Amino acid sequence: MDILKNLINKQVYRLLNHGPTTLITSAHTGQRNIMAAAWNMPLDFDPPKICVVIDKKTYTRELIEASGTFAINVPCVAQIDLVKKLGSYSGRDLVNTDKFAENQLETFAAKHIAAPLLTGCVAWLECKIIPEPHNQNTYDLFIAEVVAAYADERVFKDGKWNFEGNDQETLDKLRTIHHVAGGAFFAIGKSLQAST
Amino acid sequence: MDILKNLINKQVYRLLNHGPTTLITSAHTGQRNIMAAAWNMPLDFDPPKICVVIDKKTYTRELIEASGTFAINVPCVAQIDLVKKLGSYSGRDLVNTDKFAENQLETFAAKHIAAPLLTGCVAWLECKIIPEPHNQNTYDLFIAEVVAAYADERVFKDGKWNFEGNDQETLDKLRTIHHVAGGAFFAIGKSLQAST
Repeated sequence: MDILKNLINKQVYRLLNHGPTTLITSAHTGQRNIMAAAWNMPLDFDPPKICVVIDKKTYTRELIEASGTFAINVPCVAQIDLVKKLGSYSGRDLVNTDKFAENQLETFAAKHIAAPLLTGCVAWLECKIIPEPHNQNTYDLFIAEVVAAYADERVFKDGKWNFEGNDQETLDKLRTIHHVAGGAFFAIGKSLQAST
Repeated sequence: MDILKNLINKQVYRLLNHGPTTLITSAHTGQRNIMAAAWNMPLDFDPPKICVVIDKKTYTRELIEASGTFAINVPCVAQIDLVKKLGSYSGRDLVNTDKFAENQLETFAAKHIAAPLLTGCVAWLECKIIPEPHNQNTYDLFIAEVVAAYADERVFKDGKWNFEGNDQETLDKLRTIHHVAGGAFFAIGKSLQAST
Protein backbone atom coordinates (compact mmCIF):
# COMPACT_ATOMS: atom_id res chain seq x y z
CA MET A 1 0.00 0.00 0.00
CA ASP A 2 1.90 3.05 -1.19
CA ILE A 3 -0.06 5.50 0.93
CA LEU A 4 1.72 4.09 3.99
CA LYS A 5 4.84 5.66 5.33
CA ASN A 6 7.06 4.11 7.93
CA LEU A 7 7.56 6.79 10.56
CA ILE A 8 10.79 7.74 12.25
CA ASN A 9 10.69 7.07 15.97
CA LYS A 10 10.73 10.63 17.20
CA GLN A 11 7.58 11.51 15.23
CA VAL A 12 5.45 8.58 16.39
CA TYR A 13 3.97 10.42 19.41
CA ARG A 14 2.40 12.90 17.00
CA LEU A 15 -0.03 10.24 15.79
CA LEU A 16 -1.74 10.33 19.21
CA ASN A 17 -0.74 13.73 20.58
CA HIS A 18 -3.97 15.44 19.47
CA GLY A 19 -6.12 12.86 21.24
CA PRO A 20 -7.85 10.68 18.64
CA THR A 21 -10.09 7.78 19.55
CA THR A 22 -8.50 4.51 18.42
CA LEU A 23 -9.24 0.90 17.55
CA ILE A 24 -7.14 -1.78 19.25
CA THR A 25 -6.49 -4.92 17.21
CA SER A 26 -5.12 -8.10 18.73
CA ALA A 27 -4.43 -11.71 17.82
CA HIS A 28 -3.25 -14.89 19.51
CA THR A 29 -3.10 -18.48 18.25
CA GLY A 30 -5.58 -17.86 15.44
CA GLN A 31 -8.02 -15.79 17.46
CA ARG A 32 -8.29 -12.08 16.75
CA ASN A 33 -10.31 -9.10 17.92
CA ILE A 34 -10.88 -5.38 17.51
CA MET A 35 -12.24 -2.89 20.05
CA ALA A 36 -12.57 0.88 20.43
CA ALA A 37 -10.31 2.70 22.91
CA ALA A 38 -10.48 6.42 23.56
CA TRP A 39 -8.26 6.26 26.65
CA ASN A 40 -4.80 6.38 25.14
CA MET A 41 -1.85 8.77 25.20
CA PRO A 42 1.81 9.05 24.24
CA LEU A 43 4.21 8.26 27.08
CA ASP A 44 7.67 8.80 25.59
CA PHE A 45 9.42 10.01 22.43
CA ASP A 46 12.29 7.66 21.49
CA PRO A 47 11.89 4.78 21.71
CA PRO A 48 8.22 5.73 21.46
CA LYS A 49 5.98 4.44 24.23
CA ILE A 50 2.25 4.77 24.72
CA CYS A 51 -0.39 4.08 27.41
CA VAL A 52 -3.81 2.60 26.82
CA VAL A 53 -6.62 1.44 29.10
CA ILE A 54 -8.01 -2.05 28.34
CA ASP A 55 -10.74 -3.26 30.65
CA LYS A 56 -10.41 -6.67 32.33
CA LYS A 57 -13.68 -7.96 30.94
CA THR A 58 -12.76 -7.40 27.28
CA TYR A 59 -11.76 -10.17 24.89
CA THR A 60 -8.96 -7.89 23.70
CA ARG A 61 -7.49 -8.02 27.22
CA GLU A 62 -7.24 -11.80 27.04
CA LEU A 63 -5.56 -11.72 23.61
CA ILE A 64 -3.07 -8.95 24.36
CA GLU A 65 -1.99 -10.44 27.69
CA ALA A 66 -1.49 -13.80 25.98
CA SER A 67 0.41 -12.42 22.98
CA GLY A 68 2.15 -9.47 24.64
CA THR A 69 1.34 -7.32 21.62
CA PHE A 70 -1.41 -5.26 20.01
CA ALA A 71 -1.89 -2.58 17.38
CA ILE A 72 -3.39 0.87 17.72
CA ASN A 73 -5.33 1.81 14.60
CA VAL A 74 -6.38 5.46 14.21
CA PRO A 75 -9.77 5.55 12.45
CA CYS A 76 -11.31 8.47 10.58
CA VAL A 77 -14.64 10.18 9.91
CA ALA A 78 -15.56 7.65 7.19
CA GLN A 79 -15.50 4.94 9.90
CA ILE A 80 -17.52 6.45 12.77
CA ASP A 81 -20.46 4.06 12.49
CA LEU A 82 -18.02 1.15 12.47
CA VAL A 83 -16.09 2.51 15.48
CA LYS A 84 -19.28 2.87 17.48
CA LYS A 85 -20.42 -0.62 16.52
CA LEU A 86 -17.06 -2.21 17.35
CA GLY A 87 -17.16 -0.48 20.73
CA SER A 88 -20.64 -1.76 21.51
CA TYR A 89 -20.23 -5.55 21.81
CA SER A 90 -17.67 -8.17 22.70
CA GLY A 91 -15.88 -10.46 20.26
CA ARG A 92 -16.12 -13.11 22.97
CA ASP A 93 -19.85 -13.43 22.35
CA LEU A 94 -19.40 -14.46 18.72
CA VAL A 95 -19.59 -18.12 17.73
CA ASN A 96 -17.65 -19.49 14.73
CA THR A 97 -16.85 -15.99 13.52
CA ASP A 98 -15.12 -12.82 14.73
CA LYS A 99 -15.68 -9.08 14.50
CA PHE A 100 -13.54 -8.87 11.36
CA ALA A 101 -15.52 -11.47 9.43
CA GLU A 102 -18.85 -10.29 10.79
CA ASN A 103 -18.22 -6.71 9.70
CA GLN A 104 -16.39 -7.67 6.47
CA LEU A 105 -13.32 -5.75 7.56
CA GLU A 106 -10.28 -5.59 5.31
CA THR A 107 -6.94 -5.85 7.03
CA PHE A 108 -3.27 -6.05 6.19
CA ALA A 109 -0.42 -7.70 8.04
CA ALA A 110 1.69 -5.96 10.66
CA LYS A 111 5.46 -6.39 10.37
CA HIS A 112 6.39 -7.30 13.93
CA ILE A 113 3.21 -8.53 15.62
CA ALA A 114 0.35 -10.92 14.91
CA ALA A 115 -2.47 -8.38 15.22
CA PRO A 116 -4.00 -7.38 11.87
CA LEU A 117 -4.09 -3.70 10.86
CA LEU A 118 -7.40 -2.26 9.71
CA THR A 119 -7.58 -0.92 6.16
CA GLY A 120 -9.16 2.54 5.91
CA CYS A 121 -7.62 3.89 9.10
CA VAL A 122 -5.16 6.80 8.82
CA ALA A 123 -2.41 5.62 11.19
CA TRP A 124 -1.22 2.38 12.75
CA LEU A 125 1.11 1.69 15.69
CA GLU A 126 2.48 -1.82 16.31
CA CYS A 127 2.93 -2.17 20.08
CA LYS A 128 4.79 -4.56 22.41
CA ILE A 129 3.62 -4.54 26.01
CA ILE A 130 6.12 -3.58 28.70
CA PRO A 131 4.81 -5.84 31.47
CA GLU A 132 3.64 -3.85 34.49
CA PRO A 133 1.38 -6.26 36.38
CA HIS A 134 0.46 -3.77 39.11
CA ASN A 135 -0.79 -1.19 36.58
CA GLN A 136 -2.58 -3.84 34.55
CA ASN A 137 -4.28 -5.44 37.54
CA THR A 138 -5.09 -2.29 39.51
CA TYR A 139 -5.91 0.24 36.78
CA ASP A 140 -6.39 -1.77 33.55
CA LEU A 141 -3.49 0.39 32.37
CA PHE A 142 -1.04 -0.91 29.75
CA ILE A 143 2.31 0.57 28.83
CA ALA A 144 3.78 -0.46 25.49
CA GLU A 145 6.68 0.32 23.21
CA VAL A 146 5.80 1.19 19.64
CA VAL A 147 7.96 -1.04 17.44
CA ALA A 148 6.66 0.25 14.09
CA ALA A 149 4.26 2.96 12.98
CA TYR A 150 2.76 4.07 9.71
CA ALA A 151 0.41 6.77 8.49
CA ASP A 152 -1.64 7.57 5.44
CA GLU A 153 0.51 10.12 3.65
CA ARG A 154 -2.54 11.90 2.31
CA VAL A 155 -3.09 13.30 5.83
CA PHE A 156 0.16 12.74 7.77
CA LYS A 157 3.39 13.76 6.06
CA ASP A 158 6.78 14.97 7.27
CA GLY A 159 5.67 14.45 10.85
CA LYS A 160 2.51 16.55 10.66
CA TRP A 161 -1.18 15.93 10.26
CA ASN A 162 -2.69 17.98 7.45
CA PHE A 163 -6.36 17.62 6.61
CA GLU A 164 -6.56 20.58 4.26
CA GLY A 165 -5.91 20.50 0.51
CA ASN A 166 -7.30 20.32 -2.99
CA ASP A 167 -9.75 17.47 -2.55
CA GLN A 168 -11.30 18.75 0.67
CA GLU A 169 -14.25 16.35 0.54
CA THR A 170 -11.92 13.34 0.63
CA LEU A 171 -9.68 14.90 3.29
CA ASP A 172 -12.68 15.67 5.52
CA LYS A 173 -13.52 11.97 5.54
CA LEU A 174 -9.96 11.19 6.62
CA ARG A 175 -10.05 13.47 9.67
CA THR A 176 -9.41 11.73 12.98
CA ILE A 177 -12.37 11.25 15.30
CA HIS A 178 -12.60 12.10 18.98
CA HIS A 179 -15.28 10.37 21.01
CA VAL A 180 -17.15 12.02 23.85
CA ALA A 181 -19.82 9.49 24.85
CA GLY A 182 -22.64 7.41 23.40
CA GLY A 183 -21.54 7.59 19.78
CA ALA A 184 -21.11 11.39 19.87
CA PHE A 185 -17.82 12.24 18.18
CA PHE A 186 -16.00 15.29 16.99
CA ALA A 187 -13.97 15.37 13.81
CA ILE A 188 -10.64 17.10 14.35
CA GLY A 189 -11.10 20.62 13.08
CA LYS A 190 -9.33 23.73 11.91
CA SER A 191 -5.54 23.91 11.89
CA LEU A 192 -4.17 26.75 14.04
CA GLN A 193 -0.57 27.88 14.48
CA ALA A 194 0.34 29.62 17.73
CA SER A 195 2.22 32.82 17.02
CA THR A 196 4.39 33.20 20.08
CA MET B 1 -18.62 32.55 38.42
CA ASP B 2 -22.02 31.39 37.22
CA ILE B 3 -20.72 29.85 34.00
CA LEU B 4 -19.18 27.09 36.12
CA LYS B 5 -20.99 23.88 36.78
CA ASN B 6 -19.90 21.31 39.29
CA LEU B 7 -19.91 18.01 37.42
CA ILE B 8 -21.25 14.72 38.63
CA ASN B 9 -18.53 12.10 38.96
CA LYS B 10 -19.59 9.81 36.16
CA GLN B 11 -19.38 12.61 33.57
CA VAL B 12 -15.92 13.87 34.50
CA TYR B 13 -14.08 11.60 32.03
CA ARG B 14 -15.89 13.34 29.20
CA LEU B 15 -13.86 16.49 29.79
CA LEU B 16 -10.74 14.66 28.54
CA ASN B 17 -12.20 11.83 26.45
CA HIS B 18 -11.84 13.69 23.14
CA GLY B 19 -8.14 14.36 23.76
CA PRO B 20 -7.64 18.07 24.48
CA THR B 21 -4.26 19.56 25.30
CA THR B 22 -4.26 20.83 28.89
CA LEU B 23 -2.55 23.21 31.27
CA ILE B 24 -1.38 21.82 34.61
CA THR B 25 -1.46 24.23 37.55
CA SER B 26 0.29 23.52 40.83
CA ALA B 27 1.12 25.23 44.12
CA HIS B 28 3.08 24.48 47.27
CA THR B 29 4.03 26.72 50.21
CA GLY B 30 3.42 29.94 48.29
CA GLN B 31 5.10 28.81 45.06
CA ARG B 32 2.93 28.15 42.02
CA ASN B 33 3.39 27.16 38.41
CA ILE B 34 1.58 26.38 35.17
CA MET B 35 2.73 24.20 32.27
CA ALA B 36 1.26 22.67 29.11
CA ALA B 37 0.53 18.92 29.02
CA ALA B 38 -0.85 17.12 25.98
CA TRP B 39 -0.15 13.65 27.39
CA ASN B 40 -3.23 13.04 29.50
CA MET B 41 -6.15 10.62 29.47
CA PRO B 42 -9.07 9.41 31.58
CA LEU B 43 -8.33 6.27 33.61
CA ASP B 44 -11.60 5.50 35.39
CA PHE B 45 -15.21 6.62 35.65
CA ASP B 46 -16.33 6.76 39.29
CA PRO B 47 -14.50 7.85 41.28
CA PRO B 48 -12.95 9.56 38.28
CA LYS B 49 -9.24 9.03 37.79
CA ILE B 50 -6.86 10.39 35.18
CA CYS B 51 -3.28 9.88 33.96
CA VAL B 52 -0.85 12.62 33.02
CA VAL B 53 2.83 12.68 32.09
CA ILE B 54 4.93 15.26 33.96
CA ASP B 55 8.64 15.28 33.12
CA LYS B 56 11.20 15.07 35.92
CA LYS B 57 12.92 18.28 34.95
CA THR B 58 9.82 20.48 35.22
CA TYR B 59 9.13 22.85 38.07
CA THR B 60 5.57 21.51 38.10
CA ARG B 61 6.94 18.07 38.99
CA GLU B 62 8.60 19.50 42.11
CA LEU B 63 5.42 21.28 43.21
CA ILE B 64 3.00 18.41 42.58
CA GLU B 65 5.19 15.83 44.29
CA ALA B 66 5.52 18.15 47.30
CA SER B 67 1.80 19.01 47.51
CA GLY B 68 0.31 15.75 46.24
CA THR B 69 -2.16 17.73 44.16
CA PHE B 70 -2.56 19.60 40.88
CA ALA B 71 -5.27 20.92 38.59
CA ILE B 72 -5.91 20.14 34.95
CA ASN B 73 -7.19 23.20 33.12
CA VAL B 74 -8.65 22.69 29.62
CA PRO B 75 -7.76 25.73 27.50
CA CYS B 76 -9.48 26.91 24.32
CA VAL B 77 -8.78 28.49 20.93
CA ALA B 78 -8.65 31.99 22.43
CA GLN B 79 -5.64 30.86 24.49
CA ILE B 80 -3.42 29.07 21.94
CA ASP B 81 -0.62 31.66 21.98
CA LEU B 82 -0.61 31.52 25.77
CA VAL B 83 -0.58 27.70 25.82
CA LYS B 84 2.39 27.60 23.47
CA LYS B 85 4.24 30.23 25.53
CA LEU B 86 3.55 28.47 28.84
CA GLY B 87 4.85 25.24 27.31
CA SER B 88 8.06 26.87 26.09
CA TYR B 89 9.90 27.83 29.30
CA SER B 90 10.26 26.80 32.93
CA GLY B 91 8.84 28.63 35.90
CA ARG B 92 12.01 27.61 37.73
CA ASP B 93 14.01 30.09 35.68
CA LEU B 94 11.99 33.09 36.87
CA VAL B 95 13.34 35.31 39.67
CA ASN B 96 11.00 37.16 42.03
CA THR B 97 8.00 36.42 39.85
CA ASP B 98 6.13 33.43 38.42
CA LYS B 99 4.44 32.53 35.15
CA PHE B 100 1.08 33.82 36.43
CA ALA B 101 2.38 37.29 37.30
CA GLU B 102 4.60 37.49 34.23
CA ASN B 103 1.72 36.67 31.89
CA GLN B 104 -0.88 38.63 33.90
CA LEU B 105 -3.00 35.51 34.27
CA GLU B 106 -6.30 35.69 36.14
CA THR B 107 -7.07 32.75 38.36
CA PHE B 108 -9.69 31.62 40.83
CA ALA B 109 -9.39 29.35 43.84
CA ALA B 110 -9.90 25.61 43.70
CA LYS B 111 -12.12 24.09 46.41
CA HIS B 112 -9.98 21.16 47.56
CA ILE B 113 -6.41 21.90 46.47
CA ALA B 114 -3.93 24.79 46.59
CA ALA B 115 -3.35 25.03 42.83
CA PRO B 116 -5.04 28.05 41.21
CA LEU B 117 -7.48 27.52 38.33
CA LEU B 118 -6.95 29.57 35.17
CA THR B 119 -9.73 31.93 34.13
CA GLY B 120 -10.69 31.65 30.46
CA CYS B 121 -10.30 27.89 30.26
CA VAL B 122 -13.40 25.79 29.52
CA ALA B 123 -12.97 22.99 32.09
CA TRP B 124 -11.07 22.35 35.29
CA LEU B 125 -10.28 19.15 37.19
CA GLU B 126 -8.94 19.25 40.76
CA CYS B 127 -6.67 16.23 41.20
CA LYS B 128 -5.11 14.35 44.13
CA ILE B 129 -2.17 12.12 43.25
CA ILE B 130 -2.47 8.42 43.96
CA PRO B 131 1.17 7.74 44.83
CA GLU B 132 2.74 5.25 42.44
CA PRO B 133 6.50 5.82 42.83
CA HIS B 134 7.48 3.22 40.22
CA ASN B 135 5.35 4.88 37.51
CA GLN B 136 6.49 8.34 38.54
CA ASN B 137 10.19 7.46 38.61
CA THR B 138 10.30 5.16 35.58
CA TYR B 139 7.81 6.77 33.21
CA ASP B 140 7.08 10.29 34.58
CA LEU B 141 3.53 8.95 34.74
CA PHE B 142 1.10 10.23 37.38
CA ILE B 143 -2.22 8.71 38.34
CA ALA B 144 -4.67 10.95 40.19
CA GLU B 145 -8.21 10.97 41.47
CA VAL B 146 -10.36 13.88 40.36
CA VAL B 147 -11.91 15.34 43.53
CA ALA B 148 -13.86 18.13 41.83
CA ALA B 149 -14.50 19.21 38.27
CA TYR B 150 -16.20 22.10 36.56
CA ALA B 151 -16.92 23.24 33.04
CA ASP B 152 -18.01 26.37 31.24
CA GLU B 153 -21.71 25.75 30.66
CA ARG B 154 -21.62 27.67 27.41
CA VAL B 155 -19.80 24.68 25.85
CA PHE B 156 -20.25 21.74 28.26
CA LYS B 157 -23.74 21.06 29.52
CA ASP B 158 -25.63 17.96 30.65
CA GLY B 159 -22.47 15.90 30.25
CA LYS B 160 -21.77 16.89 26.64
CA TRP B 161 -19.49 19.30 24.84
CA ASN B 162 -21.40 21.50 22.39
CA PHE B 163 -19.55 24.14 20.42
CA GLU B 164 -22.40 24.97 18.07
CA GLY B 165 -25.07 27.60 18.67
CA ASN B 166 -26.34 31.10 18.07
CA ASP B 167 -23.16 33.05 18.76
CA GLN B 168 -20.87 30.86 16.68
CA GLU B 169 -17.99 33.33 16.70
CA THR B 170 -17.80 33.19 20.50
CA LEU B 171 -18.26 29.42 20.59
CA ASP B 172 -15.48 28.89 18.02
CA LYS B 173 -13.08 30.67 20.39
CA LEU B 174 -14.15 28.31 23.18
CA ARG B 175 -13.34 25.13 21.24
CA THR B 176 -10.78 22.88 22.88
CA ILE B 177 -7.31 22.74 21.32
CA HIS B 178 -5.32 19.66 20.38
CA HIS B 179 -1.57 20.08 20.01
CA VAL B 180 0.48 18.19 17.43
CA ALA B 181 3.97 19.70 17.70
CA GLY B 182 5.80 23.02 17.63
CA GLY B 183 2.79 25.23 18.30
CA ALA B 184 0.68 23.53 15.61
CA PHE B 185 -2.77 22.88 17.05
CA PHE B 186 -6.14 21.76 15.84
CA ALA B 187 -9.38 23.18 17.17
CA ILE B 188 -11.88 20.45 17.87
CA GLY B 189 -14.20 20.38 14.88
CA LYS B 190 -17.54 19.26 13.61
CA SER B 191 -19.90 17.28 15.82
CA LEU B 192 -20.82 13.87 14.39
CA GLN B 193 -23.27 11.30 15.74
CA ALA B 194 -22.66 7.65 14.83
CA SER B 195 -25.84 6.09 13.52
CA THR B 196 -25.43 2.45 14.50
